[in-house]
Amino acid sequence: MKANRVYNFNPGPAILPLEVLKEAQSELLNFNNSGMSVMEISHRSPEYDEVHNKAKADIKELMGLGDDYEVLFIQGGASTEFAMIPMNFALDGKKGNYVLSGSFSTKAYQEAEIQGVGVVAGSSKENNFRNIPKQDEIKLSADAAYLHICYNNTIYGTEYHYIPETHGVPLIADMSSDMLSRPLDFSRFSLIYAGVQKNLGPAGVTLVVVKKSFIENSPENIPTMLRYNTYSKKNSLYNTPPAFGIYMVGKVAAWIKKQGGLQAMAEKNAQKAALLYDAIDNSNGFYKGHADKDSRSFMNVTFRLANEELEAKFVAEAKKQQLCGIKGHRSVGGMRASIYNAMPYEGVKALADFMLKFKEENL
Amino acid sequence: MKANRVYNFNPGPAILPLEVLKEAQSELLNFNNSGMSVMEISHRSPEYDEVHNKAKADIKELMGLGDDYEVLFIQGGASTEFAMIPMNFALDGKKGNYVLSGSFSTKAYQEAEIQGVGVVAGSSKENNFRNIPKQDEIKLSADAAYLHICYNNTIYGTEYHYIPETHGVPLIADMSSDMLSRPLDFSRFSLIYAGVQKNLGPAGVTLVVVKKSFIENSPENIPTMLRYNTYSKKNSLYNTPPAFGIYMVGKVAAWIKKQGGLQAMAEKNAQKAALLYDAIDNSNGFYKGHADKDSRSFMNVTFRLANEELEAKFVAEAKKQQLCGIKGHRSVGGMRASIYNAMPYEGVKALADFMLKFKEENL
Repeated sequence: MKANRVYNFNPGPAILPLEVLKEAQSELLNFNNSGMSVMEISHRSPEYDEVHNKAKADIKELMGLGDDYEVLFIQGGASTEFAMIPMNFALDGKKGNYVLSGSFSTKAYQEAEIQGVGVVAGSSKENNFRNIPKQDEIKLSADAAYLHICYNNTIYGTEYHYIPETHGVPLIADMSSDMLSRPLDFSRFSLIYAGVQKNLGPAGVTLVVVKKSFIENSPENIPTMLRYNTYSKKNSLYNTPPAFGIYMVGKVAAWIKKQGGLQAMAEKNAQKAALLYDAIDNSNGFYKGHADKDSRSFMNVTFRLANEELEAKFVAEAKKQQLCGIKGHRSVGGMRASIYNAMPYEGVKALADFMLKFKEENL
Repeated sequence: MKANRVYNFNPGPAILPLEVLKEAQSELLNFNNSGMSVMEISHRSPEYDEVHNKAKADIKELMGLGDDYEVLFIQGGASTEFAMIPMNFALDGKKGNYVLSGSFSTKAYQEAEIQGVGVVAGSSKENNFRNIPKQDEIKLSADAAYLHICYNNTIYGTEYHYIPETHGVPLIADMSSDMLSRPLDFSRFSLIYAGVQKNLGPAGVTLVVVKKSFIENSPENIPTMLRYNTYSKKNSLYNTPPAFGIYMVGKVAAWIKKQGGLQAMAEKNAQKAALLYDAIDNSNGFYKGHADKDSRSFMNVTFRLANEELEAKFVAEAKKQQLCGIKGHRSVGGMRASIYNAMPYEGVKALADFMLKFKEENL
């Protein structure tokens, strides 16, 4: 820990790389010798163009995607994407197909329902979202316009460990909580989106990575700001973009490159997750993981203790050790440690050590 | 000028108070002893709640509004409001009425047109948007759901000097470029909105100040994120808000209070504007203002020189004096000096002095 900083296990807004914050701090009054803050420069200036385009290029490079994909910066969070997706793609009587694997995938489906175009193609709701539905549990409707999945479920602590096969139906994924956390064959997705406030930057930017051919013709009877091609045609500069947020996302992407890219991130993230899952699995039931083992998230580790009293004690004592933000979401209860890219190994080690000590003191 | 800063006349994103930027810089790694950046704290935490609610309260206090008004923080800029307004209010066959006084008011109207509910109630297009239509030039349709105006036209440099009388029809105003720049009887408006990146903060937050009774019942067949009551019911925390931007808006609002509130801002802004309009009016036609005198903006001063060559020379020489961002928008040409709240008197004085010197050297 440095500069009076705590270990921040918040689910989002979440920890950012200290290096990135320090860089932003040092140039906050005068960006790149412009004599202005990056918050004050014109979004039509060459200085901003460089920030914007470098962020896009680095993200595509990290994901190993080529010219057939486009990076967009949108506002309104994943919740706005939930509405844009059916409006843009569930056309001509076709239906949006959804796998329900947690809270946000269910909200995405409900938003399609408002438009009368939602179909449930798979669900783990009956299992209290402890697992990700398997390939053979996903049944697409005959009129499927797309299949929508949420790749990592922040609240329940589950994550896909495979990419669903859709036999040609476009695959759309909400990766808000595991974007750029590991390599994947991203070319199997038609559209990937993420509210950046978990793994990539401050709240207020939605990163969308999309196959160009998928958004060539957005419907013209929907609001301009809800058409994907409004963003692709104007390099996400149709109106003033959330420039400071995009600047921060660019810095985080450059930081990931410096760490060795997505493969290096994946290895580091797997090591970090193993520390906590081992602490759970070796606790003789003192800690009970929420997620089924084959669906465990590398980003959000959820677990419960014997009772709520003990859980409250755990949260309070952890906080005294500067281990913050580990109280779980009310719909699962217990604990949730969010260990995104920016969380250092030492932070997770400190939590794992604390878990061992707390168990011994409270058996 | 301090700390290698220039005088920034950009139209938006635009200059922010140096004091505010310095404060943000000093606490960027550790907000309020939380051990986290304000970008990293949870939007459900008491620390963030205080930031959020203080910003709302200060804005209402500055505007002299009571409990019958609500402050909302939305994303997507004014362009998203253009679509939300007809979706939320032009219902039951009623029509959105629009006064066209420039580029953005026209875009707002066009967005209503996409929904088939737009009516032009007045326009100064034939006069190349040199003036604001007068009260008797505004004709509401019999089925008017609301009257929409753009109070200050950033591109053309015009501003309303009166509040249109609508005889009970709800009045809606885009105040993106003059929000909190002067007192006004804000209670005559049903809804006021502003992309904050001109007068109030970094891009990525839309400030909406609205009469509670006007948004009680948003239609349930439109996307959740486009219903005004989604924001009012959840204190603008239905999903993760653009927290850093709201934090900056809060700091700017507190700074305005410290300057003496809207009356003090209005006086300062009038003095600043007079410097430039006097320089134009006393130039014997060397500088030609775009706006008609009775419609001149206190925020954006637009003027032309004899030819484009001379204009290019003006921009280049001004830049050498650290007077930046004064090239006009392509649809008007010439110069535009944006002199928002945060622009100090000395900056405008430096520009006025330069205008005099440049005229003498280039007569």
